[in-house]
Amino acid sequence: MMSIQPLLSLVGARHDEGMQTLWISAHPEPRSLNGSLRTAGIRALDELGYPYQQSDLYAMGWDPTVRATDYGAEGSRLDVSNASKRAYLADTLHADIRAEQAKLDWAELVVVQFPLWWYGMPAILKGWFDRVFVKGYAYGVRDPETGAVLRYGTGGLAGKRALAVVTIGAPAEALGPRGIHGEPEEVLFPLLHGTFWYTGMTPLCPMVVPNANRVSESDFAIHAKTLRERLRTAALDEPIGYRSAAGGDYDENLVLRPGIAAGERGLVLHRS
Amino acid sequence: MMSIQPLLSLVGARHDEGMQTLWISAHPEPRSLNGSLRTAGIRALDELGYPYQQSDLYAMGWDPTVRATDYGAEGSRLDVSNASKRAYLADTLHADIRAEQAKLDWAELVVVQFPLWWYGMPAILKGWFDRVFVKGYAYGVRDPETGAVLRYGTGGLAGKRALAVVTIGAPAEALGPRGIHGEPEEVLFPLLHGTFWYTGMTPLCPMVVPNANRVSESDFAIHAKTLRERLRTAALDEPIGYRSAAGGDYDENLVLRPGIAAGERGLVLHRS
Repeated sequence: MMSIQPLLSLVGARHDEGMQTLWISAHPEPRSLNGSLRTAGIRALDELGYPYQQSDLYAMGWDPTVRATDYGAEGSRLDVSNASKRAYLADTLHADIRAEQAKLDWAELVVVQFPLWWYGMPAILKGWFDRVFVKGYAYGVRDPETGAVLRYGTGGLAGKRALAVVTIGAPAEALGPRGIHGEPEEVLFPLLHGTFWYTGMTPLCPMVVPNANRVSESDFAIHAKTLRERLRTAALDEPIGYRSAAGGDYDENLVLRPGIAAGERGLVLHRS
Repeated sequence: MMSIQPLLSLVGARHDEGMQTLWISAHPEPRSLNGSLRTAGIRALDELGYPYQQSDLYAMGWDPTVRATDYGAEGSRLDVSNASKRAYLADTLHADIRAEQAKLDWAELVVVQFPLWWYGMPAILKGWFDRVFVKGYAYGVRDPETGAVLRYGTGGLAGKRALAVVTIGAPAEALGPRGIHGEPEEVLFPLLHGTFWYTGMTPLCPMVVPNANRVSESDFAIHAKTLRERLRTAALDEPIGYRSAAGGDYDENLVLRPGIAAGERGLVLHRS
């Protein structure tokens, strides 16, 4: 801990406590690999002296489905984004959503831990983002002076760091640069770039645990140690270097300017 | 219709009826753009003479959360994939799941229609895949002779074609090859490649409706016409040309062999 104190101050953490962490997890079985990783992670936060809050979505019985009742908008034609913004501004969002936003407001580090199902988040977790990241709060936030929409590198959740911890059934080889499943950072682009970075959070490189159905006890000990290290250094780790929407690389239509990443194609274009 | 009869016979549709279509949709508001597209699509199927079934997930009150009760596995340590396979083989899956599998078994064309939320499917729809695509049915199916796992180009749902119809708030420019949001076919890789193709379905190029919050009546008429045309030609449209796992391009670890797509990188590697 001592060695990262100067950096912690840069990200707004209190020197005596470590990064304020929100741990979001999404597995139906506490005695699973994901359950064990969560336990190991929370123990590491305890040892590191990071204050934390948790959203263990299965344990909470989290409802993942966006509905008119989230916004008190029953009975009229539902426009999800505008109804959510109105309810956010009027402080009338569903209590479940306000509770999660309060945790997020407090957090400096957001850990999102899940098993990869069909190459994405389990529905219960996807619906945490669908419901909690409402307009005016996480997106559609404007610069008060210029009126510009703030996104991709700045926005409603700017200043927070985000770490995805993902178990994947496939073996490591098939998740490599030429593996059939695609590299995790590309498959997770909707979360890392389209959600974390879009809302202004700083995405760290995800921690991936491959071969999730065949993890031995000695494998697990290594993963738990890696997880502790990732948490310990989360304030100073080099993030994924996505390009900022406002950094000059994109034109007014959010298209990369000629000459930027010339000759490249695909999602890697958006890393500087 | 008449002109595509020979091709319909190739995909197993009956000559006198057109492709048997399962239309899955996921929007909370019937009077939305998505609701209107669904209505237009169903009308087109009526006109084309395609028999269809629907899974309008919000209207059905679909529960998207995977639970032990899906598999009658309450009370013991839940191993999702193996519990799902056991319940599938014993025909004891939750009735909600069996009903959706019966529709899928019948379908030759699967239409998955949704608004893009946080660069992915709404949770209610993600949870349709999470719950319905169980082991032994959609994945983890083995060749009875060789014992090889069938996936990516073959598998439990082989022979079906799949069309994603996706509304996106962003304008078309920012969804182009150098647009900040990434190209829809890359952002949707988890669905198109990791789900449709993985389970053996043939993924068609998605139909994308950009600028979803600013669609005029004349824009909508164009989209409805495009949708009808996509449905009419769904049996013969050139699919996304993903590489087959068993086609010789990948080695035994499912890594692309040297020389295949040399010099390329990223998700485009997996298109031939």
